[in-house]
Amino acid sequence: MNDNTSGLTLLGLGAMGTALAQAWLTAGHRLTVWNRTPGRAEALAGRGARIAGSAAEAVAANRLVVTCLLDDASVGEALDGADLTGKDLVNLTTGTPGQGRARAAWAAERGARFLDGGVMAVPPMIGAPESGAFIFYSGSRDLLDEHRDTLAVPARPVHVGEDAGYAALQDVALLSAMTGMFAGVTHAFALLRREKDISPKEFAPTLVAWLTAMTSYTYGIADHLESGDYTRNVTSNLAMMVEGNATMLRTAEEQGISAELITPFTTLMERRLADGHGDEGTAGVVDLLLR
Amino acid sequence: MNDNTSGLTLLGLGAMGTALAQAWLTAGHRLTVWNRTPGRAEALAGRGARIAGSAAEAVAANRLVVTCLLDDASVGEALDGADLTGKDLVNLTTGTPGQGRARAAWAAERGARFLDGGVMAVPPMIGAPESGAFIFYSGSRDLLDEHRDTLAVPARPVHVGEDAGYAALQDVALLSAMTGMFAGVTHAFALLRREKDISPKEFAPTLVAWLTAMTSYTYGIADHLESGDYTRNVTSNLAMMVEGNATMLRTAEEQGISAELITPFTTLMERRLADGHGDEGTAGVVDLLLR
Repeated sequence: MNDNTSGLTLLGLGAMGTALAQAWLTAGHRLTVWNRTPGRAEALAGRGARIAGSAAEAVAANRLVVTCLLDDASVGEALDGADLTGKDLVNLTTGTPGQGRARAAWAAERGARFLDGGVMAVPPMIGAPESGAFIFYSGSRDLLDEHRDTLAVPARPVHVGEDAGYAALQDVALLSAMTGMFAGVTHAFALLRREKDISPKEFAPTLVAWLTAMTSYTYGIADHLESGDYTRNVTSNLAMMVEGNATMLRTAEEQGISAELITPFTTLMERRLADGHGDEGTAGVVDLLLR
Repeated sequence: MNDNTSGLTLLGLGAMGTALAQAWLTAGHRLTVWNRTPGRAEALAGRGARIAGSAAEAVAANRLVVTCLLDDASVGEALDGADLTGKDLVNLTTGTPGQGRARAAWAAERGARFLDGGVMAVPPMIGAPESGAFIFYSGSRDLLDEHRDTLAVPARPVHVGEDAGYAALQDVALLSAMTGMFAGVTHAFALLRREKDISPKEFAPTLVAWLTAMTSYTYGIADHLESGDYTRNVTSNLAMMVEGNATMLRTAEEQGISAELITPFTTLMERRLADGHGDEGTAGVVDLLLR
C-alpha cells in the first residue's frame, strides 16, 4: 500500500459514516475524519482516526475524499471552502440521479475526479463481506480502479456506468421495489391481524418462501420490456389476474381492512385490460407510469 | 388403494381443472369428470376419464368430489340437484374466506364433509412436485387425512385449520403480498424505462437478489406484531425510512414517472411517524389499515 491508496478522508459520521470509518480503521487504513458536530469524531480518535479541525483541512490530508453526509446540500456546504484540485471525490451521500450528475459537474469544475455511490446496506452490514452488502458506483471508473482495494473494504463495489446518475438511479430502483414488497407484506399481515388462531410468526416462513419464489416474475417483465412482446411465455395473463384481484379486494373488505396499498396496481391492471391487452402479462403497466 | 381413496370426481375443466385431471389420470386414479360445456371433458376421455352426463351423475359416481369452477356461485349452481349425503367435498374454486365458511355450512346441511382449498400454483406447476406448488386446505382434517394420497397428487397439501375460511384467507394473503411486490418491481422498471444504457434483463438479476434478501423483513414484522413491541431489533427505523422516501419520490419525479404505486405506503409511514413512532419499524402501518 502507498499513501495514495491506503490513506483517506471521510466527511460525515452519522450511523453510516461511523460504520464506514470503523471498517477502514479495522482494515488498517490511515483515516482522517471530520464531522460537523465534533463529538462523534472524538469517539473514533481512540481507534486511530485523525481528527481534522475543518472540512477543508480534512480534504487537504488525502487525495481520496469520501463524503457521507445528511443530503446533497450538506456536501456542497461542507466542501465550500476546500481545495478539490487533483482530489478523488467519492460521494456516498443519499441523493437522486440528478443530484449525482450535478455534483459530478461541480466536482469537474473544481478539478476533482468524481464517483457517486449508493450504499445497499444498513450500517451493521458494513465491513462484513458475508452480509451481502454492496455499493453501486457510477462516474469515473478510473477512480474506482485506482482505489478499489480501499473502496472494497466497507462493501463490494459494483460499477454501473460512467453516467454519475446511474448509482443513485439503480439504488432508488431497488429501494422502490422493496417498498412495494413491504407494502404487500403489510397488507398480508393486516388481513390476518384479527384472526387469533393465525400466528404471524408461524405464517412468516410461508410468506417468505412464496415471495422468494415469485421474485422470478422480474425476469419475465424484463424480457417483455426488452423484447417489446408482452405476451410471450405468459402463464397467468392480465385477464386471469384481474379476475383474481376481485377476490383479493373482496377479501380485504370481509376482513375489514383498507385495500389502499394494493388498489393502485389493480386499478392500472384493469385499465390495461380495458385497453385490450388481456393476453399480456403486466409489463404494460410499466408504460402506464410514464408521464 | 381401495375405491374410496383412488376414485374421484372432478367438476370443472378450465385451465386449472384440466391440469388437475391430467395429474390424477397420469397417477392412475379412476376419474369421473363433468364440465358445463362438454368439449373439454371429451378431450380427457381419450386419457381414460369417465364423462358424466350431469353434475349430479358425476357426484353419484364417487365419494370424493372435487370442484374447480369459475366462482363460488358456480359451485352452488352445479351441485344444486346433486345428493351430497355422505360425500367428501373438496372445493378448489377461487373464493373469499367468507365464501369458504358459507360453503362449509351449506355442505354440512347436506350431509357432506367439506374441505376448502387454495391452489398456490399456475396450471403448469400441477402434478410436478419439483415446481414448489402447494395447496392450502382448511376445514375437515379427517377428510384430508383419509384422502391424502389422492389429494397430494396435484400438489403438496398444507392444512391450515378447521376454520373453512383459513385456506382462502392465507391464499389471498400470499397473493396480496405478491401483488405489492409486483407493483414495486413495476415502479423500478419504470424508473429505468427511458435510460437506453440500462438493460432490463441485465438489471433483473440484481433486483431479484435484492428482493430475495429483503424478504427477511417479513420475520421482523411478524415478531413485532406478535410481541407488540414495534421497536426491537430495528436497524432502519421509521424516521430514517421516511427520509429515504423523499429521495425515492424525488427520483420518480426526475425520471418523469408517476409514483402512484408507492405513495400509499410512504403516506402511511409518514402518518405513523407524525403520530410519534419514529423509533419503530413499519409494523404500525399494519394497524393503520384496520377499519
